[in-house]
Amino acid sequence: SLKSELNAMNPADAGDYIASLPPKDQAIAFRLLGKSRAASVFEYLPSEVQEMLTESLHAREVQAIVEQMSPDDRAELFDELPARVVKRLLTQLSPSEREATALILGYPEGTAGRVMTTEYVRLRQDLTVGQAIQKIRKLDQDKETIYYAYLTDAERQLLGVVSLRQLLFAEPDTPVRTLARETIISVPTTADQEEVARLMKRYDLLAMPVVDLEGRLVGIVTVDDVVDILEEEATEDIQKLSGIIGGDEEALSSPIETVKKRLPWLLGNIALYMGAASAIAPFQSTISLIPVLAIVMPILANTSGNVGNQAISVTVRGLATGEVDPVDVFKILRKEILAGLVNAVALGLVLGLLTLIWSRPEEQWVGVVAALVMAVNVLVAASLGTFLPIILKRFKQDPALVSPPLLTTTLDTFGFFTFLGLTSLFLLYFKAG
Amino acid sequence: SLKSELNAMNPADAGDYIASLPPKDQAIAFRLLGKSRAASVFEYLPSEVQEMLTESLHAREVQAIVEQMSPDDRAELFDELPARVVKRLLTQLSPSEREATALILGYPEGTAGRVMTTEYVRLRQDLTVGQAIQKIRKLDQDKETIYYAYLTDAERQLLGVVSLRQLLFAEPDTPVRTLARETIISVPTTADQEEVARLMKRYDLLAMPVVDLEGRLVGIVTVDDVVDILEEEATEDIQKLSGIIGGDEEALSSPIETVKKRLPWLLGNIALYMGAASAIAPFQSTISLIPVLAIVMPILANTSGNVGNQAISVTVRGLATGEVDPVDVFKILRKEILAGLVNAVALGLVLGLLTLIWSRPEEQWVGVVAALVMAVNVLVAASLGTFLPIILKRFKQDPALVSPPLLTTTLDTFGFFTFLGLTSLFLLYFKAG
Ligand SMILES: [Mg+2]
Ligand SMILES: [Mg+2]
Ligand SMILES: [Mg+2]
Ligand SMILES: [Mg+2]
Ligand SMILES: [Mg+2]
Ligand SMILES: [Mg+2]
Ligand SMILES: [Mg+2]
Ligand SMILES: [Mg+2]
Ligand SMILES: [Mg+2]
Ligand SMILES: [Mg+2]
Ligand SMILES: [Mg+2]
Ligand SMILES: [Mg+2]
Ligand SMILES: [Mg+2]
Repeated sequence: SLKSELNAMNPADAGDYIASLPPKDQAIAFRLLGKSRAASVFEYLPSEVQEMLTESLHAREVQAIVEQMSPDDRAELFDELPARVVKRLLTQLSPSEREATALILGYPEGTAGRVMTTEYVRLRQDLTVGQAIQKIRKLDQDKETIYYAYLTDAERQLLGVVSLRQLLFAEPDTPVRTLARETIISVPTTADQEEVARLMKRYDLLAMPVVDLEGRLVGIVTVDDVVDILEEEATEDIQKLSGIIGGDEEALSSPIETVKKRLPWLLGNIALYMGAASAIAPFQSTISLIPVLAIVMPILANTSGNVGNQAISVTVRGLATGEVDPVDVFKILRKEILAGLVNAVALGLVLGLLTLIWSRPEEQWVGVVAALVMAVNVLVAASLGTFLPIILKRFKQDPALVSPPLLTTTLDTFGFFTFLGLTSLFLLYFKAG
Repeated sequence: SLKSELNAMNPADAGDYIASLPPKDQAIAFRLLGKSRAASVFEYLPSEVQEMLTESLHAREVQAIVEQMSPDDRAELFDELPARVVKRLLTQLSPSEREATALILGYPEGTAGRVMTTEYVRLRQDLTVGQAIQKIRKLDQDKETIYYAYLTDAERQLLGVVSLRQLLFAEPDTPVRTLARETIISVPTTADQEEVARLMKRYDLLAMPVVDLEGRLVGIVTVDDVVDILEEEATEDIQKLSGIIGGDEEALSSPIETVKKRLPWLLGNIALYMGAASAIAPFQSTISLIPVLAIVMPILANTSGNVGNQAISVTVRGLATGEVDPVDVFKILRKEILAGLVNAVALGLVLGLLTLIWSRPEEQWVGVVAALVMAVNVLVAASLGTFLPIILKRFKQDPALVSPPLLTTTLDTFGFFTFLGLTSLFLLYFKAG
């Protein structure tokens, strides 16, 4: 039957199945789940379906599920629900779960405090290994992980971490204290979630302890959530590099949301790009005389923009993963300039030759100017594409969202102006000569 | 002393410290590490330093370290070392470690078989929980994780998975078989590493079993490696979207490497873009008459390219995370066209008005043409930016590397041609009228 099938499925699959049903059937299907499974499936449902279910299920059913959710997932849910619903659900929670949820919701979005869970294993440091294992076996089943146990004193001060692996391989009468490493890796509640993810990646941790300003343990961030954070942050960078504000558009976001995330950036970009267009304006008479310039200019702009974006993407991604250290800026610039020189010569030659195709015999000298300007622009593009994100990051600006438009405008302003300026100068000289 | 400090550090930190030393001191510092720590620190060293150490340490020291490494990290190391060194090291390995390494190296890069480790916990399914825990406690310390145990029969057929958590919370005389879930989540050795990572993210797993074509368990992929895979794959997509071939350039790659990863794409892009430039060529006389066209064209190209890239980045990222299902193409297109309509009107109006700034009084009608062409181009850009990656993926092409240049060229060819073509038609009409 559907009931037994649903209950045998993995919670993630059951969640997907329910989400795929027509809205009117979702609550019906969800009710087929056993009590203990309902909460775990609920955590895997998309937030729209979660919201819908909190409306369509009985208040009692909703309360039972919300009570069982882990505090971090509950906080995420409450973030999405209307304030009046959250208020009602909070008052119905047991005091300990309410306190945990309020604690997490008290931290700003994107911080360790906001993504942590308060359900972890805490042990007194004077236990033996045998006592510790016994203690863990008698714990509530609600801990997000039992594979790390955190040693604290009576004030909850974090004193050490031992893994279940260490406990299992040690002799039962060993004091747990002696198993703990000297250096404790932990983060403050205020740490950026991305920084937490980086550290856990670096140290290959399954969970990271989060401490408050007084060094007291308040929660842990688990690796399953870190996987989500890293993916979210990568999406953010990819989208921002292409001019999506916030970097969190979804493929099926509403058209209005989509316009809000894209149009302001596009308009800002046009405003900026007015600078490049204005660099062309004074040279209209030159273009009238040599219209082949209007064929070459888009190739120049397109190519140097591409060169700059290559450098930007390597730098922005490197800054995000921690691979690029702003201190290394000159080493990286050196590489970009050396590689840029090769690209400059190649692309300059190509553009020079292409220009010849479209030029009348008496205009062929334009090819030389085009080659020169392209070569210089390619070098500027590679350097600026490296320098700009690092400088922006230094001044705490978002390198992903603004580097590309700043770069394109600068390059095109400079490129159009030198290209048309030099051409005009040559024209004058030829006329004079 | 440095020795005690190095030995007290976390292996990742000790690795960083050694890597930061001048090359001549690295081997000296590395020798200060205790025997059992040497291998774990070695796994965290950058591959250049690993290579260097395999040259500068005594053959015996190298062999001891390589013997202790986990098979997946060892396979990664062997991938980087010269063939003659690998051959020597392989012959010195114990038969079981040699077999494990050869097995992993036999699978193609980027597959589950290549990133798995062969050091996992395997249990006979007729054990009780108590026996299973006793068995685990007596295992070699070399298992990458002991938190999942895999149940197999005598032929190594994968029959189930139990977590250490389940074992610890169960009664000692429970048969382990009864704890295992009915549905086993596993991947074949041939699975794409990205697919493995997606599944582990979806099901929140700490390790994924890898089975051969006959369903026999051959290894596991652990979550710490999945974190690395997801980051690597995101970097790949970010870089490819900006035209970096392979998507694996490093900020400090050599200039030659850098040129190889960038120049061919740039040249291909110019070759493609010749199409757009050729669309301008027939209209040189129009441009001579109305040079303001040469000011407007770059704005048109820049803006519609941006609109297209916004759509591409959302789609490419969505395809990579599995958020975008090619089946949903029409739903997504609908959203893009609705949002695109708003953007088209806004951007068309803006470009129309801007054109007026630079136009002589008798040319002001060009503003209307510019507005119209921009609006149409924006709509085409948004649709194509969605459609192109999905189609490319469908035909097993890499959507990230080729969508942007295909899009830009198509848009600019179409945009320049309609803009200049319409303007030329109007000119003819005015002359005739
Ligand atoms: Mg709870
Ligand atoms: Mg962030
Ligand atoms: Mg790691
Ligand atoms: Mg969680
Ligand atoms: Mg989670
Ligand atoms: Mg970020
Ligand atoms: Mg081994
Ligand atoms: Mg590995
Ligand atoms: Mg891949
Ligand atoms: Mg997950
Ligand atoms: Mg590994
Ligand atoms: Mg690893
Ligand atoms: Mg990929």
